Amino acid sequence: VARILNRGLSPSDIAHLLESTPPKERSILWRLVDKDLEGEILQYLSDEVRTDFLSKLNPQELVSITEDFETDDLADVLQQLPEKVIQEVLDSMDSQDRHRIEAVLSYAEDTAGGLMNTDTITIRPDISIDVVLRYLRRHRSLPDMTDKLIVVNRKDEFIGTLPITTMLVASPSSTVREVMNTDAVTISVNTPDTEVANLFERRDLVSAPVLSSEGRLLGRVTIDDVVDVIRDDADHSLMSMAGLDEDDDTFTPIIKTAKRRAVWLGINLITAFIASAVIGLFEATIEKVVALAVLMPIVASMGGIAGSQALTLVIRSMAVGQISRNNLGWLLNREFIVGIINGTLWALVVAGAAIVWFNDLMIGVIIALALMINLIVAAVAGTMLPVILRARDIDPALAGGVILTTITDVVGFLSFLGLATIVYA
Amino acid sequence: VARILNRGLSPSDIAHLLESTPPKERSILWRLVDKDLEGEILQYLSDEVRTDFLSKLNPQELVSITEDFETDDLADVLQQLPEKVIQEVLDSMDSQDRHRIEAVLSYAEDTAGGLMNTDTITIRPDISIDVVLRYLRRHRSLPDMTDKLIVVNRKDEFIGTLPITTMLVASPSSTVREVMNTDAVTISVNTPDTEVANLFERRDLVSAPVLSSEGRLLGRVTIDDVVDVIRDDADHSLMSMAGLDEDDDTFTPIIKTAKRRAVWLGINLITAFIASAVIGLFEATIEKVVALAVLMPIVASMGGIAGSQALTLVIRSMAVGQISRNNLGWLLNREFIVGIINGTLWALVVAGAAIVWFNDLMIGVIIALALMINLIVAAVAGTMLPVILRARDIDPALAGGVILTTITDVVGFLSFLGLATIVYA
Ligand SMILES: [Mg+2]
Ligand SMILES: [Mg+2]
Ligand SMILES: [Mg+2]
Ligand SMILES: [Mg+2]
Ligand SMILES: [Mg+2]
Ligand SMILES: [Mg+2]
Ligand SMILES: [Mg+2]
Ligand SMILES: [Mg+2]
Ligand SMILES: [Mg+2]
Ligand SMILES: [Mg+2]
Ligand SMILES: [Mg+2]
Ligand SMILES: [Mg+2]
Ligand SMILES: [Mg+2]
Repeated sequence: VARILNRGLSPSDIAHLLESTPPKERSILWRLVDKDLEGEILQYLSDEVRTDFLSKLNPQELVSITEDFETDDLADVLQQLPEKVIQEVLDSMDSQDRHRIEAVLSYAEDTAGGLMNTDTITIRPDISIDVVLRYLRRHRSLPDMTDKLIVVNRKDEFIGTLPITTMLVASPSSTVREVMNTDAVTISVNTPDTEVANLFERRDLVSAPVLSSEGRLLGRVTIDDVVDVIRDDADHSLMSMAGLDEDDDTFTPIIKTAKRRAVWLGINLITAFIASAVIGLFEATIEKVVALAVLMPIVASMGGIAGSQALTLVIRSMAVGQISRNNLGWLLNREFIVGIINGTLWALVVAGAAIVWFNDLMIGVIIALALMINLIVAAVAGTMLPVILRARDIDPALAGGVILTTITDVVGFLSFLGLATIVYA
Repeated sequence: VARILNRGLSPSDIAHLLESTPPKERSILWRLVDKDLEGEILQYLSDEVRTDFLSKLNPQELVSITEDFETDDLADVLQQLPEKVIQEVLDSMDSQDRHRIEAVLSYAEDTAGGLMNTDTITIRPDISIDVVLRYLRRHRSLPDMTDKLIVVNRKDEFIGTLPITTMLVASPSSTVREVMNTDAVTISVNTPDTEVANLFERRDLVSAPVLSSEGRLLGRVTIDDVVDVIRDDADHSLMSMAGLDEDDDTFTPIIKTAKRRAVWLGINLITAFIASAVIGLFEATIEKVVALAVLMPIVASMGGIAGSQALTLVIRSMAVGQISRNNLGWLLNREFIVGIINGTLWALVVAGAAIVWFNDLMIGVIIALALMINLIVAAVAGTMLPVILRARDIDPALAGGVILTTITDVVGFLSFLGLATIVYA
């Protein structure tokens, strides 16, 4: 096994294999991996699995294993370690490397600064393409994802970019200034990573220079790391809606999983008790007309479904930056009218079924009205909730569903049982 | 406005603006756009919006507007048009372009073949780097995302790749064969796009050659299109779970939206009626003990929450290719035990609350047992459902939630009301 592992597979494939393996087998596999492959494999592992492996090492081992890491990956690793270990690792590095890593460490992990690498190749505007080619040839290798060189002045201020594809077709005698791109996309160091991702996606970038607020070149962000941000953000929406953490390892052990899930069940239990309390208000009515107990889940669940459609749509649209003050009114209006249309349609269907089932005209009228009320409330709540939550810096993907269910359950039971109490009392 | 639009913004920004605008204003903006920018903007638009604009054009206009499209984008556009229009557009193209586009059109849209471009730059292994550089300089420009040249023999069979970064540091006198990469990642033309995306993500690729089953070079896939696949797939999971179509335009007009949502509500209504039918079996018991009607939504909804956690986790893990026969057993076992742990924990809490609320010991015992049964069933169903559905080629993200809710509602009501009937009868 050890031989197949170390010779037949690429480091990224081994990383994938490790991530697809339950904890105990995972540690065994990890021990079989060649020492000199470990560093590269670690770079491809997800945060959770990587931290797990690294937490077992002492600072000396840490330094030697992370020797060949790219700056951004090393910063990610360090950020998850205790302060004391960070210091030991930094102390053991040479001053150039230490400066680089400290530069990245000083920015928040979820900004362009935390995402960037410091491995930029810079050139001056007044040299010729021929000189650039000779300068490049002096390197033993160029950093991965080098699709452009960055043109800076003496003060390291950004002037423009020289895409490699432009350089290769340019006449060797022309100067960098003549062929460089002066309106290239640049990223300010404090830009949130989600915005960086949207920019890369929209402009089809492979790499982009990161600038300080004074226009000085600090590093560059590359598409491979942006792809990870895109996947993380997408995972975040999906997983948060089920109360899961997107960093969760699929094979997290039982106890850890049980603890995290318990919290989410507890929060939802509060919602369920609120709904029960509402039903409890109408015990007398239900005792008189038991059919109400049979039909009431329909009103609540249809509201929940309709609401979650609006909620999901708005959360997705907010993620790609499509929602603003200008179009929110239009959206709310559409969801409202769609709520009326579908509320009416399904109210008629459910009313018909209820009348036939219980041979009672009034119960049909009551459930039709309750359904319409709940579907319209659900549409409005589903649309507005994410906007309101985000304005208060609460994550809509995490909190939206629970709050929405509470609203649609309460409104559903209240309107249905409330109307029934008026009619049957 | 027209001037700001056409001069101040990049084509991709205008595309984003159009996508963030409701339908009526969108057509007005589109009419203000410069004719010669239209083609480029279209390439950045989502399928739905683009098809909408293009469907209003006649074949001549179509040909002229899509003139500068990349092969893959043109293929995407054509695939959405009627057969007759496709033929007219193909007839009006020169034979080289037609051959290229027909090559891409012959593969399914969601495979490497449908994703590829035919703009590869190929070289022979026996020439020197210096000759390659001179050959490149004869081009007026190189295709975007050209991070490697592809080395082929006389029969166009793939031999290896020459990364541009390798070429730039190589000695001009060395031959391509000496410096080329012979174990580069290649993609077979029928590979599903999701697998292509996982490969790009795992191996940090910018482009990869696409080969026929005989090893002949057909084209290349680039990261910008892969990013769109990643976003689409992620959107698909998120949106499908709410019964939405990931291609849905955020600003789809009222009637179209209402129709699509109505279908989903209808499907869920069937689920709700099944749950009601189960409750209906126990009308007599509820009439005797109304507290059951008050508490029953708790059992059903806690099951739904626990189940959707397992379901979402498995759907996400399947998407990144982490689930296989080998680890499914481990996963099922963990979810089962987590179900027992959390079932027991919350059963005790809910039982305590119910006993205090209704001053009835038996109702506490009943709800505790029902909750435990439902949480365990939910864990197993949530884990197995996506696996079973996928084996039958049913999309788990779309169907999983509805089926799971049906199971947790039925089991929840059945166990709670069934146990109560035994006890109180
Ligand atoms: Mg993030
Ligand atoms: Mg980082
Ligand atoms: Mg793009
Ligand atoms: Mg990196
Ligand atoms: Mg990385
Ligand atoms: Mg993360
Ligand atoms: Mg429910
Ligand atoms: Mg697809
Ligand atoms: Mg295509
Ligand atoms: Mg990657
Ligand atoms: Mg393309
Ligand atoms: Mg594209
Ligand atoms: Mg699509």
